[in-house]
Amino acid sequence: MRKAIILLIVISGISTAQILTGFLGDNLKKQIEWEEKFLKIPSAKNCERHLFILTEEPHPAGSETGYRVAEYIDSLFKSYGLNSKIVDYWVYLPYPKEISLELIQPYEIKFELKETAWNWDKDTYDDIFTFFNAYSPDGEIEAQVVYVNYGLPEDYEKLKELGISVKGKIAIARYGKSFRGVKAKVAEENGAIGLIIYSDPMDDGYMKGDVYPRGPWRPEDAVQRGSIYYMFEYPGDPLTPGYPAKKDVKRINPEQAKSLPRIPTMPVSYKIASEILKNLSGPNVPEGWQGGLPFAYHTGPGPAKVKMKVKSDWKIRQIKNVIAEIRGFEEPEKKIIMGNHHDAWIYGAVDPSSGTAVMLETARALSKLIKQGWKPKRSILFCAWDAEEYGLIGSTEWVEENYNDLVKNAIAYINVDAAVSGKNFEASSVPSLDRFIEEVIKSVNDPETGNSIFAETWKRQNKSLKQVSNPPDTAKIKFGRLGSGSDYTAFLDFCGIPSIDMRFTGPYGVYHSQLDNFYWMKNFCDPSFKYHETMAKIVGLVLMRLSSCDYLPFNYGDYADEIEKYIIDIERNYEVMLKTNGIDFGGVKEKIKIMRFYSDTLNLIQKKFPKVEVQKLEQKFTQKIGLPNRDWYKHRIYAPGYYLGYGTQPLPGISEALQSGNFEVAKKETKLLEEVIDNIVKEIQNFTKTFMEGK
Amino acid sequence: MRKAIILLIVISGISTAQILTGFLGDNLKKQIEWEEKFLKIPSAKNCERHLFILTEEPHPAGSETGYRVAEYIDSLFKSYGLNSKIVDYWVYLPYPKEISLELIQPYEIKFELKETAWNWDKDTYDDIFTFFNAYSPDGEIEAQVVYVNYGLPEDYEKLKELGISVKGKIAIARYGKSFRGVKAKVAEENGAIGLIIYSDPMDDGYMKGDVYPRGPWRPEDAVQRGSIYYMFEYPGDPLTPGYPAKKDVKRINPEQAKSLPRIPTMPVSYKIASEILKNLSGPNVPEGWQGGLPFAYHTGPGPAKVKMKVKSDWKIRQIKNVIAEIRGFEEPEKKIIMGNHHDAWIYGAVDPSSGTAVMLETARALSKLIKQGWKPKRSILFCAWDAEEYGLIGSTEWVEENYNDLVKNAIAYINVDAAVSGKNFEASSVPSLDRFIEEVIKSVNDPETGNSIFAETWKRQNKSLKQVSNPPDTAKIKFGRLGSGSDYTAFLDFCGIPSIDMRFTGPYGVYHSQLDNFYWMKNFCDPSFKYHETMAKIVGLVLMRLSSCDYLPFNYGDYADEIEKYIIDIERNYEVMLKTNGIDFGGVKEKIKIMRFYSDTLNLIQKKFPKVEVQKLEQKFTQKIGLPNRDWYKHRIYAPGYYLGYGTQPLPGISEALQSGNFEVAKKETKLLEEVIDNIVKEIQNFTKTFMEGK
Repeated sequence: MRKAIILLIVISGISTAQILTGFLGDNLKKQIEWEEKFLKIPSAKNCERHLFILTEEPHPAGSETGYRVAEYIDSLFKSYGLNSKIVDYWVYLPYPKEISLELIQPYEIKFELKETAWNWDKDTYDDIFTFFNAYSPDGEIEAQVVYVNYGLPEDYEKLKELGISVKGKIAIARYGKSFRGVKAKVAEENGAIGLIIYSDPMDDGYMKGDVYPRGPWRPEDAVQRGSIYYMFEYPGDPLTPGYPAKKDVKRINPEQAKSLPRIPTMPVSYKIASEILKNLSGPNVPEGWQGGLPFAYHTGPGPAKVKMKVKSDWKIRQIKNVIAEIRGFEEPEKKIIMGNHHDAWIYGAVDPSSGTAVMLETARALSKLIKQGWKPKRSILFCAWDAEEYGLIGSTEWVEENYNDLVKNAIAYINVDAAVSGKNFEASSVPSLDRFIEEVIKSVNDPETGNSIFAETWKRQNKSLKQVSNPPDTAKIKFGRLGSGSDYTAFLDFCGIPSIDMRFTGPYGVYHSQLDNFYWMKNFCDPSFKYHETMAKIVGLVLMRLSSCDYLPFNYGDYADEIEKYIIDIERNYEVMLKTNGIDFGGVKEKIKIMRFYSDTLNLIQKKFPKVEVQKLEQKFTQKIGLPNRDWYKHRIYAPGYYLGYGTQPLPGISEALQSGNFEVAKKETKLLEEVIDNIVKEIQNFTKTFMEGK
Repeated sequence: MRKAIILLIVISGISTAQILTGFLGDNLKKQIEWEEKFLKIPSAKNCERHLFILTEEPHPAGSETGYRVAEYIDSLFKSYGLNSKIVDYWVYLPYPKEISLELIQPYEIKFELKETAWNWDKDTYDDIFTFFNAYSPDGEIEAQVVYVNYGLPEDYEKLKELGISVKGKIAIARYGKSFRGVKAKVAEENGAIGLIIYSDPMDDGYMKGDVYPRGPWRPEDAVQRGSIYYMFEYPGDPLTPGYPAKKDVKRINPEQAKSLPRIPTMPVSYKIASEILKNLSGPNVPEGWQGGLPFAYHTGPGPAKVKMKVKSDWKIRQIKNVIAEIRGFEEPEKKIIMGNHHDAWIYGAVDPSSGTAVMLETARALSKLIKQGWKPKRSILFCAWDAEEYGLIGSTEWVEENYNDLVKNAIAYINVDAAVSGKNFEASSVPSLDRFIEEVIKSVNDPETGNSIFAETWKRQNKSLKQVSNPPDTAKIKFGRLGSGSDYTAFLDFCGIPSIDMRFTGPYGVYHSQLDNFYWMKNFCDPSFKYHETMAKIVGLVLMRLSSCDYLPFNYGDYADEIEKYIIDIERNYEVMLKTNGIDFGGVKEKIKIMRFYSDTLNLIQKKFPKVEVQKLEQKFTQKIGLPNRDWYKHRIYAPGYYLGYGTQPLPGISEALQSGNFEVAKKETKLLEEVIDNIVKEIQNFTKTFMEGK
């Protein structure tokens, strides 16, 4: 046995690069042929047609129009010959009922909460959701205003240094740097009685480029709607935390729901914000707080005083996920899951329909391949989630319902929300999947340049290296890590299922505004829909490879490297604190080394003794006990930062304990991390043993 | 002899810190007493009165009002009992005659070139110099406009990458990053036929803070006038390069003057610039080019097309320096020189009159001290220069005339242009004077906090260190290095005289506008004139110490350290280039080490064998052959960067040769640098020898 391993190492050391990691012998040959056939199928025209239909009407979660979209998706899946069904849940969703804002000091303006209608675009005339931050509590308040920059904890610290308090005031914060729900939470913690959030032209407007209709960027009256749900506590239905919101389950009272915000909040455009901000006195703002409006910002409080009313129609509403399946031919219980939500604040051309158009086209292409004789070993699921915008609700409820099956059989989750808002490929993933994604995007070309997506991405990420025109053989691209903000959250953070989020990004200035519609997509983003087609090809290859490979192309050595980086970062950032409090990562680092060694061994052994179980290593990163203060989050390497919301916080248990100076927790979390890595090492050892014995 | 030195080293090693480096025994005691008396004399009220009178009328160089200011200064010096005289030169000065600007495409606007008048400020109603860039050639041109960001060489490179040429176009550049004359030069080099320079609100307007009249920053219609003279070629009268412009000397033709600009240029306000910039098409600007106007910037060219007319009244005009002297009692031929210009574009409250008010008050205080019996060993000169704004003309002509005496007898030059535009002390100097300046500002307190200026400056420069409230004993402050932009240039760069420039800075948004007047100073800057008084105390101590010390408190070890830093920077920035072309700084670094060793020895020896000649070491940094391509600049460690204008370029010969890829010149300059340092080492050895023999 020993000899075999050594031989293997020697052989692998000199073998030329394999094209498709995970495929062997005949299966490799067949795979290459099927991929060639597949790549010819996805069609830009189809994507365009899907997007046109999906964006016909505003279709928020739980609405009649939303149901129509779900049914349309279901019927299409069925027309492709897939097993498709609608799975419903009953969840707590507010709709805007009465929302108003007035400036009452130093003079009076009743603001019109409406985006401009343009005569070339019928989608700007509809009757639609007003300026709404979902889950804002009801309230009618009146107070002076304080400008709080991005509304981060450190912004309020700065205000305190200046002697300015938001107690009893209404805070006005600009969008950016943190999830809007975090802004509401931090404003609440600091004693504000209400919050106004606006899009500053510095971050999202003319300082970025031409605004609509001259260009793709946010014009002065376009508002970013969105939920302020405290997803960092737990995502999913507020009233059924941790379990599926089936029609007749027992629900908690809204008062008990830790995930519901506490102060009235609403979004406004920068046209409206300008009227408020220019009427603030107090000192000029600190460095870095000035936005792009053409006057010097002040903190307030006052003299600007506003009257704000938020009233929602609170109801338990039905939502509809669509789940369609291509059944595997050898191990049908094993599944690769692709998903995107279908609910939108308004038309949602980019967010989410570009992803849905891609998913539909991918499903069509693969089902066509099946008709040609393709036989994937494992099952592929296509999931169109509902109520993502409110708080990742559809996906979370479904994951909670199917928890046992998923942790046993789910191989990976692939998310394609907002798939096309430009031409720049971006991927976030768990580190074990980085190399796999790179291999996939080496097989798909950019529709404009003809270079591979890999080469384009590498060049964009390395544009400071002027002379290099093509990536060297050793090139790697940079990946994001998964925080929150889309439907992978429950898969990764609750179940420990390896996840990927992919998209083409660009100058996307109409996020959550009524302008995110078909006209904008056609005129400013992807006129030919070639990037939609390209994303369908990328996702298709991901699904084809994971559903048919001999062994999973996951690399846990990369994961070990990444964790080590996080540890080193923490050591650098908290050097003195760690020493003073006797927190030491020597043990963790030792374990990481061992993990890397065994991961490398595993990579070699798999080639000889293929098996597909290794995705379960990811689950070892989760533990029954969730993170301190937010038990729903089970993953110990990644979570959305509690005060970031969307952004990733690597090693969240340790990092956030250190941030808040809670050293006992930090110690406990360090121990847990050691345990977790230990478990992975043991699992790898088990795998290698059973693999080889199995042979 | 040897023993003496060793003993000295031992003693100095254990002695407690001396208060005043350069003073010994009785002289130290006397000095401390005189300084105490001196610090009681300067009066804020006097500074206010001076400033009020100096800013009564607009007084550009060569005008009747300018002469009146010179005569007022002369009469005041005389009233203090000083030897004062007016020294005149005849120099080539253009006055604005006909300047106009029109937008002619895509619609027509004839711009009004006038700043707003405010009814509380009579100085906004006067008839004054219009929007004028002095030395712009005459011309009437008409062309499409291209936005060129700051107009730096790399900005034009970027435009080329975008396929945009300024050939035959009029460039519009924003102020900042480089001297305006450099902007004209680079526009000319790139083929533009004209240049408009404007103040962008991002750099100098509402993005910085409240604009006039709510705050001190530049309002939309306030323009920055100023000379575009090619000072980086040579400063001083264009027609008498390198020799004094006395009335009847032979002059070169203007066509021969390398220092005269070649394309019509004018400054405008951001109100006017906005009308032009918003009518540009072409691509959105590259990253970092967007300014603070409320729309997305484009590069052009066009459709904005402008018609621009510049016509000046070109004349040889008389200018008047005022030179006043306190005669030294022991070595009257040795002199410490303080200076500032008196000409202003308009009223010039900050620039230059705050410095002149300080100089007058310093002169009054020292002459009062003389009456009380103070007897400085060496002479002190107070110089009020004319025509600085045009191109450092008054000071340069005087230095050229007195070259032989200066290199023999001048100990240091102290410049106080624009002495008070706020409350933050800043000093630029040659490195040998850093420690001396620190000692001085430890003896003067901030009028608001009562802490020493040193402590305030250190705290401001280290505000990221949150917990430290007072500077530790080892604290040093950061000094600027002298580029150009004020009257120290001829002293340092032409003669190698150790120089200092000091000022209090702050939110100064009215530079070269008519708003830089008494009202602004009184309402937004230094209402009590306490910072004027404080600067008079600082400068007074500098003059008192240098005029009466037993040996000069100059530290050439610091200079050696600084040069070594520059070398290391160059090695880092040009690593590959240097290797490829066989340029090596090993020899220079060796010499620097030796220089440091001997400098340290010198510091110790001086205490035992005091002499005041060491300022001449600075002259060793200059050489008869000037810098490559601009022979007037003789200093080999510092010069204004050719493409910076005001900013310092350390080791200019080597650095600029490397920047332009001229490796032969770089090698030659490296040799010259070695020579220069070698000369200094020899001179130090001579000094120590003669010092000790002299004893």
